[in-house]
Amino acid sequence: MLSKYQEFLEKKLSKQEFNENPKNLYEPIDYIMKLSGKRIRPILVLLASDAYNHTLEDAWAAALSVEIFHNFSLVHDDIMDHAPLRRGNITVHEKWDTNVAILSGDAMLILAIQKLEYYNGIRFENLIKLLCKTALQVCEGQQMDVDFETMKFVLEEDYITMISKKTAVLVAASLQMGAIVADATIFEQENIYNFGLNLGIAFQLQDDYLDAFGNPETFGKKVGGDIIENKKTYLFIKSLESNDEKLKQELLDLYKIKDENESKIEKVKNIFITTGASQKTLDAIEIYTNKALKTLELLSITEDKKQLLQNFANYLMKRKQ
Amino acid sequence: MLSKYQEFLEKKLSKQEFNENPKNLYEPIDYIMKLSGKRIRPILVLLASDAYNHTLEDAWAAALSVEIFHNFSLVHDDIMDHAPLRRGNITVHEKWDTNVAILSGDAMLILAIQKLEYYNGIRFENLIKLLCKTALQVCEGQQMDVDFETMKFVLEEDYITMISKKTAVLVAASLQMGAIVADATIFEQENIYNFGLNLGIAFQLQDDYLDAFGNPETFGKKVGGDIIENKKTYLFIKSLESNDEKLKQELLDLYKIKDENESKIEKVKNIFITTGASQKTLDAIEIYTNKALKTLELLSITEDKKQLLQNFANYLMKRKQ
Repeated sequence: MLSKYQEFLEKKLSKQEFNENPKNLYEPIDYIMKLSGKRIRPILVLLASDAYNHTLEDAWAAALSVEIFHNFSLVHDDIMDHAPLRRGNITVHEKWDTNVAILSGDAMLILAIQKLEYYNGIRFENLIKLLCKTALQVCEGQQMDVDFETMKFVLEEDYITMISKKTAVLVAASLQMGAIVADATIFEQENIYNFGLNLGIAFQLQDDYLDAFGNPETFGKKVGGDIIENKKTYLFIKSLESNDEKLKQELLDLYKIKDENESKIEKVKNIFITTGASQKTLDAIEIYTNKALKTLELLSITEDKKQLLQNFANYLMKRKQ
Repeated sequence: MLSKYQEFLEKKLSKQEFNENPKNLYEPIDYIMKLSGKRIRPILVLLASDAYNHTLEDAWAAALSVEIFHNFSLVHDDIMDHAPLRRGNITVHEKWDTNVAILSGDAMLILAIQKLEYYNGIRFENLIKLLCKTALQVCEGQQMDVDFETMKFVLEEDYITMISKKTAVLVAASLQMGAIVADATIFEQENIYNFGLNLGIAFQLQDDYLDAFGNPETFGKKVGGDIIENKKTYLFIKSLESNDEKLKQELLDLYKIKDENESKIEKVKNIFITTGASQKTLDAIEIYTNKALKTLELLSITEDKKQLLQNFANYLMKRKQ
């Protein structure tokens, strides 16, 4: 069912040229935009627009805008993380250099906003405002994530705020942008945004869970990566809520180890289980997913379209039904 | 005469708070925005708006927008240039770190666009489009400047394009933004833009000239800086138009020296004079300044207001009359 959107997107993206002059500014943009990705955000724009019976063609500019924005954030994040690879390919700052990656990223942020010039009047105004608000939140979320690295404790509330801003608001905004393009009411826009926000939080919590307990063959990233990097994930935060002081101290001590270490990974995972943190994480994923699906019920769209959005949620959460 | 705008700006800027959370994202923004600067671009927004009899108060959001955008470009440029100082103060990437400077810069680019949300309807649409177009050109100009470093020859035409994009378009856009805020006609907008564009080019060429031949006591930067860095300025490009092959070769050889060297500076300056390049640069400054002043005549504003814009041009070009 989603293949309709995926095919439309890939066809459009393959025809989209970013290669203008100067070459050193635009080639990296063309490069990163053409690496194959899941295209979650632009699919959501198309899906939401379609849900309100609007053409895919008219939603394309907004879909392209969010995809360029998302890729801008990847290019700059990869510089900050010194990441060598992105989607299995060499990162922009490694293929060219850091200066090129900074400047091409800047140009992408501007291009993302510029793509919305396809629209006018109130749609243009609302799309620009939503994208800018969201873009600023993504920067805030990224900075919070960086700040957490050097903090000893992170509050659950702050962690949820961080993943909301870093990941979930763009998922939510993508859906709302589709609704704006289709001239949906404010009520519809807010509900579809909240559907995306809760789904995005659930998705990020699931990513935390799978990083520790996922199947190495299907997870896509190295299992235990967050533990190796001593990341203060939801599992870590929930473990520190335990009353078992000895276990908590053991976890804090393990998180002082900086090198890759299989026995550390196993020990930390056991603490996550023993303290109940792994179950609490599964519970939280369930709660946010259900919140999302409940919001779906509020939308004034046909059952077929609701089913489509639910399918997407299941696809994202890799759920069987 | 300009003090009216300067005072309004400084008062507004001193009350403008950028310090939100997370602190590590917003403190650098507050820091760079509060370093004293010439505030050329926001003054131009106010001046243009006032020229069309519009209130300074209503032009303030656009003035703030261009000043934030300009400072964004400084923060990212300073990372790329490894600059330790900006306006005599420590740069953001040195005071914090490169990652903070990248991310705070990104947030500033978004904030610059967001400030235009003060306006609505056609003014909002036109302001956003102009700022985005200009912002992309600034990125292109910056990349061209970087590209020139590793090129053996640069065409005069390409050099003028580079300084137009890197410097002049933002001067031009600032004036047009003031005109948009004041609901001036497209004809007026285009002419005031062209006034700024030519003035900006003249200003940058003068900066090239003064870098070699300026008074060390009043220039503000180190005289000879471009020569030390082997920058392909207008003086260098014009010197290579000479028929004196020996002199040209001598210049190319001197431009292979990489360290600071007083005798190199003197030799290069002599070549700039002997080849006639210094005179040609003065001629070009005159041509672009006159072009700017001629465009001023086309504007449908009072003689008083024309005089104000001319005064600003004289102030920028440090001319006596």
